[in-house]
Order: sequence, then structure tokens, then C-alpha cells
Amino acid sequence: MIKLVYCITRKPGMSRTNFSDYWLRTHAPIGARIPGVRRFVQSYAIRVPGDAAAPDFDGMVELWFDDVAALLAARSSEAWKESTADEANFIDSSRTAYFVTEEKEILSQT
Amino acid sequence: MIKLVYCITRKPGMSRTNFSDYWLRTHAPIGARIPGVRRFVQSYAIRVPGDAAAPDFDGMVELWFDDVAALLAARSSEAWKESTADEANFIDSSRTAYFVTEEKEILSQT
Repeated sequence: MIKLVYCITRKPGMSRTNFSDYWLRTHAPIGARIPGVRRFVQSYAIRVPGDAAAPDFDGMVELWFDDVAALLAARSSEAWKESTADEANFIDSSRTAYFVTEEKEILSQT
Repeated sequence: MIKLVYCITRKPGMSRTNFSDYWLRTHAPIGARIPGVRRFVQSYAIRVPGDAAAPDFDGMVELWFDDVAALLAARSSEAWKESTADEANFIDSSRTAYFVTEEKEILSQT
């Protein structure tokens, strides 16, 4: 499998609460309709004692696909286009990071 | 559980192959000694047809802990210090992103 990683920042002026609510309740159901997605995880940034700076991103999306062909097919789907269009409602497009990866699990004790 | 996310870029002049080899063979065993880590995954950036730009990062580390207290304890460990010191051997510290998160699984068909 391959994993798409998309780190995101909320739009200027949007509260963290409104961003999280929109991302979970409105945007996630759109993304969940993208064909070929094997797993879909949102990670919400939290503040931790001792962190000097604010988190570099407000959150991250991970989408797993069987292979590159499945990702390319997903990208040409209507749901992908709807998801991309909806991003303008809560994401600052100038503060994102995108990359596609292969995972290596080093350790698991869960 | 909480998840630490650390997006990284290889040092200038380092090949992708040398970066990946070092990260997996030399650095991962150090990180695996950090106390309290419940799961540890490395994600290696790959190129995908149709991507106009290079990946925004060369890879990402994810470390899961039971809670914030476990993360704070890990940060004060010797293994954490060794891991941080070793980063200078392969990571460009000016091109990283760091944040701590809570996950929400939206969809799973694995």
C-alpha cells in the first residue's frame, strides 16, 4: 500500500474549534467518498507542555491506497474534485505540505 | 493515545538512497529505544506520476504514546537525546515540521 500525506493549516481568522468541527463534520464525509481509499485518518494538532512554538501544522490527513494506480484513479474522481473544492472553506492553501509515501513500521506494541 | 508527527528533509547534497539507508538502518534502531513508544512508523516519500513538484518532505516519522505524560517522560530520556543528536547526520534541521496530534480514524477497509 501507499499513503498520501497532507499537512494542513486553518484559514486565517478561523478558530481552532471551527476548523476542527468543519474538518470532521463537513469535509471528512466528502473525502470518505473518494474511491479506492483503504484507510483514512485525520490527526488533530494539540498543544503539549514544553512546546516553545505553536504546531507547524494544525493537522494532517492520511489516505491509504492499494497502489499508485489506485491513487491516480482516485485523483480523477468526482469526489476528489469535490473534496479539493471544499478545502477552500477551511484550509490556508499557502500553508500546506503534500507528499506520497511508503510506510515502514519499525515498532508496534499496541 | 497521542501521535507525534515529524516531517523531515535530507541534508543538502545527500542522495535519497543514502538518506533512506541511514534513516532505516542507523537512526531507526536509536529511536526504537525511546521509552514509552507504543508504535513507530517511518514513511518514505515516493514520486508519483502527475506530481508537478517534488515532495514537500522526504519523509515522516510517527511515534505513538499512551498520553502526554508518556511523551514528556520520553523527551527527557537518554535515547531521545541520542536520537536528536543523530539527526544532524542526515536531516536538514531548517526544513522540518513538528506537531503532536490526536487521531480520528474516518474510514478503514484494510
